[in-house]
Amino acid sequence: MFYFSGQEIDSFINEDLPYFDLTTNLAGLKGQKVELSFVSRDDGILSSTEESAMVFRKLGCEIVGIRNSADNISAGESILNVVGRAENILSGWKVAQNILEYASGIATLTDKVVKSAKNINQSIQIVATRKTMPGAKKMLVKAIVAGGAMPHRLGLSESILFFAQHIELIGGWQKFVAKFDEIKSRAGEKKIIIEVEDLQGAIDAVSIGVDIVQIDKVKPCEAKKITEQIKKQNSLILVSIAGGINLSNVVDYAGTGADILVTSALYHAKPLDITTKILLTE
Amino acid sequence: MFYFSGQEIDSFINEDLPYFDLTTNLAGLKGQKVELSFVSRDDGILSSTEESAMVFRKLGCEIVGIRNSADNISAGESILNVVGRAENILSGWKVAQNILEYASGIATLTDKVVKSAKNINQSIQIVATRKTMPGAKKMLVKAIVAGGAMPHRLGLSESILFFAQHIELIGGWQKFVAKFDEIKSRAGEKKIIIEVEDLQGAIDAVSIGVDIVQIDKVKPCEAKKITEQIKKQNSLILVSIAGGINLSNVVDYAGTGADILVTSALYHAKPLDITTKILLTE
Repeated sequence: MFYFSGQEIDSFINEDLPYFDLTTNLAGLKGQKVELSFVSRDDGILSSTEESAMVFRKLGCEIVGIRNSADNISAGESILNVVGRAENILSGWKVAQNILEYASGIATLTDKVVKSAKNINQSIQIVATRKTMPGAKKMLVKAIVAGGAMPHRLGLSESILFFAQHIELIGGWQKFVAKFDEIKSRAGEKKIIIEVEDLQGAIDAVSIGVDIVQIDKVKPCEAKKITEQIKKQNSLILVSIAGGINLSNVVDYAGTGADILVTSALYHAKPLDITTKILLTE
Repeated sequence: MFYFSGQEIDSFINEDLPYFDLTTNLAGLKGQKVELSFVSRDDGILSSTEESAMVFRKLGCEIVGIRNSADNISAGESILNVVGRAENILSGWKVAQNILEYASGIATLTDKVVKSAKNINQSIQIVATRKTMPGAKKMLVKAIVAGGAMPHRLGLSESILFFAQHIELIGGWQKFVAKFDEIKSRAGEKKIIIEVEDLQGAIDAVSIGVDIVQIDKVKPCEAKKITEQIKKQNSLILVSIAGGINLSNVVDYAGTGADILVTSALYHAKPLDITTKILLTE
């Protein structure tokens, strides 16, 4: 499970409901008992149904039906059913719909990207970058996991990835090489990734005993050539590819022989189309 | 200006930097003085340069060059230049790049949508919905304003929009009509919007003296017909159109005679492509 604190759910609610629902108040809608149903208009994969339910629980409503994150959903099926006082239900309505639409859209695209890639290479791994919309990271990471991907790096503190900029600041490749054994000796529990942009960079990275070579911003045919070279040099080293991978080209990158594909495109999914029905229950 | 609290900036930083930058620590990069430059690879409109600068100030770095939100940027131009200790600069690098890319991408698309619409009808207003990525609202609202749009509703507490669901819960159109004068008498400072889905709904809304009729989910030709009918009935009533409006069809909707177009598509912009250069300065 992904744990969202009460404070995190409150921040979602407060974005839309800083005080009260003016329209609902003017309409005189208060204690009428109503049921709100969220129904998918598309086929897809759900995410953050649990956080949507938490929104309504916070607002004093009761959950009477809920599907789980990572569930398949077909057009026309119910995702979440909530009962409560009209003013409470209407206060959470669009907050929850928005969470469900964004998160499930991302889970749905992730599922498509993962399946497309695995159709070419069953053992390939799809991982999603740190490039999440600022403020929305936990919901986004949950969504890509629901869709069958994994996070690439959760942040700067738990993973090691040397970019060209680090190596330049150290003083260039030779200085980095001289330092590399010491780096490894201080990070024995972690895999070390070096990002490279061409064949020579990959050969150099393999020669010093890196765990993963991440090839950045190259076309699939070039990525294939570099991957083959790395695997020939040392078949134990993992190869990942990053830069511009999305649903339209993932099949090409999956055919390069790389072990891992790193992408930000999952986060830019079209929201899932979810409709709502609100009925008086008494 | 949009005010972001220190706590809001901290939440952006903490998403990527919960503890420290492990890679930078292992690389032995600490107090070396470096300059980081953010350079646009695309033409566009900037947003959240100020919040990106706040990230670096929080991390003890100094801003030596900054463009403003809403500025035009051309490919190759600098957006933000920061100097500081290597470990501080590298800790904020991707956080700031991510903020700049998402926010400026949205400002850039907004500018295109606004200009396309105004090219057809100079007085048309483009407004962006409440359907913001949960957790990212303030940055997104700032971005659409930087691009030349305005927020539709900032939330439930400051604006009045009756959906079909409200009217149904009240007990149907006749009950709503009976209540409408009382509603107006309690909300004299506000404009009242009613959402309708067809011509008859629009005729009904105009007849009771609503301020704005919001036409939802209709094709441009149908929207034009409904708009003409509304204006014929009462030329003082504003007409807005919502539902599926984006860069590819905004010209068609701008030609309907409507006063306002309501869209969520601005938030789904491709991030602006921004590159970074990091140099030792001593």
